[in-house]
Amino acid sequence: MEIGIIGSGSLGLLYSFYLSETNKVTLYTRREEQANKINKHGITLVQGNTEITKKVEASYEKNYKEPVLIITVKQYSLNSIIDTLTGLSPRTIIFLQNGMGHLRFLNHLSHHNLILGVSEHGALKVSDSVVHHTGSGITKISMYKDCESDVMNQLIRNQSEVFPFIHKSDWETILKEKLIVNATINPLTALFRVKNGELLTNPYFHKLFYELFEEVADLLKIENKELSWKQVQTICENTSENQSSMFKDIYNGRQTEIDSILGYMIEHSNEKSCPRISFLYQAIKGIERGKEGV
Amino acid sequence: MEIGIIGSGSLGLLYSFYLSETNKVTLYTRREEQANKINKHGITLVQGNTEITKKVEASYEKNYKEPVLIITVKQYSLNSIIDTLTGLSPRTIIFLQNGMGHLRFLNHLSHHNLILGVSEHGALKVSDSVVHHTGSGITKISMYKDCESDVMNQLIRNQSEVFPFIHKSDWETILKEKLIVNATINPLTALFRVKNGELLTNPYFHKLFYELFEEVADLLKIENKELSWKQVQTICENTSENQSSMFKDIYNGRQTEIDSILGYMIEHSNEKSCPRISFLYQAIKGIERGKEGV
Repeated sequence: MEIGIIGSGSLGLLYSFYLSETNKVTLYTRREEQANKINKHGITLVQGNTEITKKVEASYEKNYKEPVLIITVKQYSLNSIIDTLTGLSPRTIIFLQNGMGHLRFLNHLSHHNLILGVSEHGALKVSDSVVHHTGSGITKISMYKDCESDVMNQLIRNQSEVFPFIHKSDWETILKEKLIVNATINPLTALFRVKNGELLTNPYFHKLFYELFEEVADLLKIENKELSWKQVQTICENTSENQSSMFKDIYNGRQTEIDSILGYMIEHSNEKSCPRISFLYQAIKGIERGKEGV
Repeated sequence: MEIGIIGSGSLGLLYSFYLSETNKVTLYTRREEQANKINKHGITLVQGNTEITKKVEASYEKNYKEPVLIITVKQYSLNSIIDTLTGLSPRTIIFLQNGMGHLRFLNHLSHHNLILGVSEHGALKVSDSVVHHTGSGITKISMYKDCESDVMNQLIRNQSEVFPFIHKSDWETILKEKLIVNATINPLTALFRVKNGELLTNPYFHKLFYELFEEVADLLKIENKELSWKQVQTICENTSENQSSMFKDIYNGRQTEIDSILGYMIEHSNEKSCPRISFLYQAIKGIERGKEGV
């Protein structure tokens, strides 16, 4: 397949690297400098002690011509490309954003085949052309609405063992499952500046973790809360030595995804019914704001 | 007057220094080493660029013989001396603790004249015998119940201009006024590790500050909430460049007064009705716990 990947952060680099094994990939960057570097040096993937470099084509011109586009920009950057996507001829577009804030854009794009996905890979951008694959995971993908597209099948058929794509029938479930994790582990670890595992080992943080989970699960109308709580804790345990992306964003003075995660939830609820979500939202926004002044 | 001061932290050193001008003061320390140092070097007060040293008697033996005792230990250390105070012959005892958690001990001490006070001085213990007077304030004192004691009058009559004692008729009001400040400014600044003033200048923190104030004021049944909110903000503004005591405790890995402040409130409420207080209580306890492991 010819695939255009829009967004050249850690996920964009990671997906460009792996998908270029069996597809013709073009990675679209925001900056010309980064495109030039990638065209010159390729993309280097670091995993453990090994480094592999692969030739990948990059472009900073927004002439998205591929029949398949994968959007990896953060949700807060979607605004800037949604008009362009709206103007494109029909094709298949795959969204990999966290949260559910990007759903509101999808009705502008109804002439495309839309696939929603969540990435469970851990990735850290080391430089413009180097990405560290810090945790192997899967990519769950689901059709947003019934439509014809063989892309899903091809992705699943062509996947490599270390970079699997799994089809799920219900996009809402996979987005919510990821959202619960992002809405609990991320803001708490960012606020306390602790690794994920401390939410399980510190009894006070564990109580906060559970109370926050309850609010989030109620708001998302999760049916089997007990099972969901087990799943979230398992993910926390499996990533116990990791710093969450929001912790890293706060630590590095970058904008976090709090708006598309907790902000989205507050928009879709009564603030009074979710005091912990509301507290954490304000807290992370305040910390972001404080960093700006430094 | 002969005054025994129990507790040789920043407040104990400060009160010993100032009260020894017109009284015979003995400062009771927990460690022999500190008593020896004070007996040898006196207490040195640092204020701005000036340093004054005064001879003060110190003792680490708990033979509290003075007719007037001032208790300056933190509330969480009261347990260890309350039995001793109970066994003493009748005298006047002045309590200067933060929070209201110490009230539960007072019925054991009904044979004494009990005075409750709040200190609005800023003080920082520099070493065993040196205290920095970082902010001049007043000491508000109030009889806990009607009883005969000329101590109050003497303290007020003998006060120096830089170290005033003010009589207030209602102990509950002065304790609550201080508690509101301690319950809002302290935990928020400790959690975010910011100076007091940032609760006013950062719009997100200011919103949290107000929402927390509302919960605290409701719980303490404050009648004029609008006035009280103005007062708390004024104190925050007057101390905008200060780090709160709880921020400093957290920063230095020391135990905080969270139990006697927010813990006391949670004990006297329904946890469901104060989600922000409950969140902050768990948060500070969790941070304390995390520091222990470091």
